[in-house]
Amino acid sequence: MRKIAESTVRRLSLYLRFLEQSEGQGLTTISSAELARRGGTTSAQVRKDLSFFGSFGKRGLGYSVPELATRIRDILGLRRSYRVVLVGAGRIGSALVQYPGFRQRGFDLAAIYDRDPKKVGTRWNGLVVRDVKHIETDLRKQPSDIAIIVTPAEAAQEVADRLVRAGVKAILNFAPAQLSVPADVIVKSVNMALELETLSFALANR
Amino acid sequence: MRKIAESTVRRLSLYLRFLEQSEGQGLTTISSAELARRGGTTSAQVRKDLSFFGSFGKRGLGYSVPELATRIRDILGLRRSYRVVLVGAGRIGSALVQYPGFRQRGFDLAAIYDRDPKKVGTRWNGLVVRDVKHIETDLRKQPSDIAIIVTPAEAAQEVADRLVRAGVKAILNFAPAQLSVPADVIVKSVNMALELETLSFALANR
Repeated sequence: MRKIAESTVRRLSLYLRFLEQSEGQGLTTISSAELARRGGTTSAQVRKDLSFFGSFGKRGLGYSVPELATRIRDILGLRRSYRVVLVGAGRIGSALVQYPGFRQRGFDLAAIYDRDPKKVGTRWNGLVVRDVKHIETDLRKQPSDIAIIVTPAEAAQEVADRLVRAGVKAILNFAPAQLSVPADVIVKSVNMALELETLSFALANR
Repeated sequence: MRKIAESTVRRLSLYLRFLEQSEGQGLTTISSAELARRGGTTSAQVRKDLSFFGSFGKRGLGYSVPELATRIRDILGLRRSYRVVLVGAGRIGSALVQYPGFRQRGFDLAAIYDRDPKKVGTRWNGLVVRDVKHIETDLRKQPSDIAIIVTPAEAAQEVADRLVRAGVKAILNFAPAQLSVPADVIVKSVNMALELETLSFALANR
């Protein structure tokens, strides 16, 4: 497959969300103009985004909603589910655990880890928080593809190293630290303060 | 000033976080190698990042921690505080409101809005949730630079339009929708499900 830009992948996610809503409302076809509006882009861009993956839609009739949704789920790797482990049972971790969007899209939270003895053993959304020392043995029994790191910055790299050694291939990192991982591991970083700082930078340097 | 890449701004944020920790530990100088390690980059990149903004540090002695921290705060527009309003008193909104990192870095949450009559009037972290219908009149009295949108996707564009008309110049968008705004308004989008989907896409297309 050709290399797909991350901006394309993000728009596909947005199109999918819109297609699912349209499905819920009983719509069977949708135009590229409608998809474009929701993706914050143009009809030409929608057609280009979808053309990466073969031919879709009929000229003048628009796209079949269920067919396009299925195809995008395919492309995004969403027709299977993923076991996800979360490390760091703090405030952001708590919000993430409760976030219904994860499970809806096939991301099953399988375990939560923390190193704080006060948190280990407590129940979070149906899962018992486990001691981080069990990461390796747990993942040997039940491998996970994806891990979410929500630890303090100082702990993040060590946790990432352990997860990678235990076979994790993709990390969503909420700790305010840049992680070094082998080339075959994917890391995406999300950091609220950092996002706000790119805004303040932009405001200060207009 | 030259155009600075967003990746540079992000590294500056990470350097600053590390400098602040170092300050807390009483360190007075720091090497580019240490900054590089924390920013997940090389010493050469650190020197290049900092060279955008004038000359820093002494060869062989490293950087003065307080001096470099002050300079980066300057660059990032963090030597003033920002009034921030939040629209959408849901689960993610709740986690954000409690996030201590905002206030620490000068982002003062000034108001929370929702349109749900059950939420309007309730108290969140010391702030009373206000009806969205007051956005325009409130911001006329007390302008805000930055807004955080945590509404459902369907409501996000309308809320953004109203905020922009009320003078907001920067938006952090947690709603799973692409926002159209005028060219002088900055939008940063954060979406957990979407981040996970870029991971599943990468896992599925290796």
